[in-house]
Amino acid sequence: MAFTEFRPLDEKSLIDYIKATPSLYSKLDNKFDDLSKLGNKFDDLSVKEVGDGNLNFVYVVVNSIGSFVIKQALPYIRCIGESWPLTKERAYFEALALKEHGCLSPEHVPQVYHFDRTMSVIGMRYLEPPHIILRKGLIAGIEYPLLAEHMADYMAKTLFFTSLLYCTATEHKRHVAEFCGNVDLCKHTAQVVFSDPYKVSQYNHWTSPYLDHDAEAVREDNLLKLEVAELKSMFCERAQALIHGDLHTSSVMVTPESTQVIDPEFAFYGPIGFDVGAFLGNLIVAFFSQDGHANQVNDRSAYKEWILKTIEDTWNLFHLKFIALWDEHKNGPGEAYLSAIYNNPEVQLLVQKKYMTNLFHDTLGFGAAKMIRRIVGVAHVEDFESITDDSKRAACEHRALDFAKMILKQRKKFEGITEVVSAIGQF
Amino acid sequence: MAFTEFRPLDEKSLIDYIKATPSLYSKLDNKFDDLSKLGNKFDDLSVKEVGDGNLNFVYVVVNSIGSFVIKQALPYIRCIGESWPLTKERAYFEALALKEHGCLSPEHVPQVYHFDRTMSVIGMRYLEPPHIILRKGLIAGIEYPLLAEHMADYMAKTLFFTSLLYCTATEHKRHVAEFCGNVDLCKHTAQVVFSDPYKVSQYNHWTSPYLDHDAEAVREDNLLKLEVAELKSMFCERAQALIHGDLHTSSVMVTPESTQVIDPEFAFYGPIGFDVGAFLGNLIVAFFSQDGHANQVNDRSAYKEWILKTIEDTWNLFHLKFIALWDEHKNGPGEAYLSAIYNNPEVQLLVQKKYMTNLFHDTLGFGAAKMIRRIVGVAHVEDFESITDDSKRAACEHRALDFAKMILKQRKKFEGITEVVSAIGQF
Repeated sequence: MAFTEFRPLDEKSLIDYIKATPSLYSKLDNKFDDLSKLGNKFDDLSVKEVGDGNLNFVYVVVNSIGSFVIKQALPYIRCIGESWPLTKERAYFEALALKEHGCLSPEHVPQVYHFDRTMSVIGMRYLEPPHIILRKGLIAGIEYPLLAEHMADYMAKTLFFTSLLYCTATEHKRHVAEFCGNVDLCKHTAQVVFSDPYKVSQYNHWTSPYLDHDAEAVREDNLLKLEVAELKSMFCERAQALIHGDLHTSSVMVTPESTQVIDPEFAFYGPIGFDVGAFLGNLIVAFFSQDGHANQVNDRSAYKEWILKTIEDTWNLFHLKFIALWDEHKNGPGEAYLSAIYNNPEVQLLVQKKYMTNLFHDTLGFGAAKMIRRIVGVAHVEDFESITDDSKRAACEHRALDFAKMILKQRKKFEGITEVVSAIGQF
Repeated sequence: MAFTEFRPLDEKSLIDYIKATPSLYSKLDNKFDDLSKLGNKFDDLSVKEVGDGNLNFVYVVVNSIGSFVIKQALPYIRCIGESWPLTKERAYFEALALKEHGCLSPEHVPQVYHFDRTMSVIGMRYLEPPHIILRKGLIAGIEYPLLAEHMADYMAKTLFFTSLLYCTATEHKRHVAEFCGNVDLCKHTAQVVFSDPYKVSQYNHWTSPYLDHDAEAVREDNLLKLEVAELKSMFCERAQALIHGDLHTSSVMVTPESTQVIDPEFAFYGPIGFDVGAFLGNLIVAFFSQDGHANQVNDRSAYKEWILKTIEDTWNLFHLKFIALWDEHKNGPGEAYLSAIYNNPEVQLLVQKKYMTNLFHDTLGFGAAKMIRRIVGVAHVEDFESITDDSKRAACEHRALDFAKMILKQRKKFEGITEVVSAIGQF
């Protein structure tokens, strides 16, 4: 069977697809040398659809020798259906970003084995158990002692090396132009993050009736809309680095030792703070949801402290690593701050401080916008959704929403992450 | 003779080129119907090379029936020579920008008759006498009563209609991607505006020895470099609208009735303030040069007042027209401020005020950077260069430089153009 035109795979046609694809079937045979013998390798093959995300179909393919994941993008949003089309070309940009980010941070990005643009299929490393989605770990109250260090490392490397701090302008513009092709996904983000929550939209929902007033207040808050407009402009216009574009806690898979970032189909050249903010904003959501998961055995207070510490450590380590990369490559190819100009310690310190302060405020703004949209927008998060008691869930969401609104409006008054973490703790 | 490969034209081969190009030779015959009769039309043909710019060769072609201009880009910078290569592909982006801006502001952009990518040749309207380069008019002390109105109109229309205030994100990203191809010209600008003046460079020069200390002070001013870095980032990263990219007073041709913007080979999607700032900054340069052109017959004080009024009127009219376009199209296709969100007068006023205040500060910053580079960078301007007395020229340049440094550092403290104009007058 040939796969010369796009068609959605199912568990059966997937087998035919694998049989037709050397870069895939070779993974299932560690001594692969003879296609005629391959039949056997399919005898113990297990194929399982595991896509619990909003967008795509994901199959785990395992036999006794090897394994991989097959991810296929369909031309609409899976969780909504064909009524919300979304180009399957997103798979192309996901594969591109996985490869680019994978080169820069191989420890934290799964390897791509195969990409098929016609079929919108990516074959990549299967993140075997005990890897789980970070969000589920946070709901379960599991501590990940290396999470902050790993995420800081991933973000510092992928964002620094794709920015003008390291790239030449020529390289940068070439990549910017390429990722302009991912505009449909950018438009989707702009709509669900910066638009829908601030207007009446058929897709919005919230814990009703508890949050009816809160949702209305968001739609009528002029100062909030003013700040959101600034962030949206930055999102649409500022090509600062190749960002993941959807770096929430369901885009990260973890074990106590391993942290893997997946699902960069929203990748494009955008503001760095959008990635850092997405991650920190989702950790803050996790924090505010903990009271809903507390019970008589575990009041979650120690876990809340761990989340706060992880927020603080992630920013601080990211800051440290980003500046270290900057210092290390200050005589490198990057065209933003030429060494012949920024050649004394005093001015170097000044520009780095200004850059990181602006990035910090961008991070808080985008993080807050991401929180708001998860409470009154279209796509909610399991952190809150898994709290079955409506009134309890609404109480958690209400506090998170109020905190996010405050941060969005006041973000430029915060001077450091310690202040933010203490504001979360006291809220 | 065929022109299937690039080669530089001269006055002789240009005739062959015109004879081979219907869209050109038809301009020289208002009853064009028979190629065999065309020979006659070349009998009274005049071809004159008039390129006094820094980059290209420009020929004026006139006969008794018609006229046009032929502009050819060579793969280096004309005023420096083959030692400073610059892609001849710039002609492609110039033609693209002329057409795009010409659709939006036909009264102020000359019509393109012909474009040949292989030969890097543009055929366009000849701006017949008494059109002169605005800079020469400013040096001669000529008032242009419609200049502010015309330039405000040109800038408001070309910049508004190519921004996300009017465009869809899809259209915007497609154009951004296309103009990413003009990266070599962007790099050139970044180098001569944001880099060279702030470091030792073989190309820099200034009125020596008078300004030796000033040039050194620019290279050692950490706070100035900090502000310049912010502007450079915006220039390299922020795709706000299709900007002209080199909108100084030699890119404008004028008569008392007509204002025509030429030479957009530096066009790309960049910050709006870069265009508005280039124009206003060059008017401020013209102001500070007037004392050097004063004599016993004319002390230029009335003309200086006219320049100040033109600066003020240009910004105020631009502001007025830009906001009027925004109001007119607030329910249009633009995705920046959706009408369903920004649907009440109070929030509309808030976002417009914030947008224009930011744009005003960007304008001042870019304008000041453009002034500085004309005094201590590679390419100077006739406003100052035509002052033959070195010490007199240096005195004018010194005041302009000090003013520009002050504005660059203090720009965010200025609340309106009146304050700026009064600061210029009192400096």
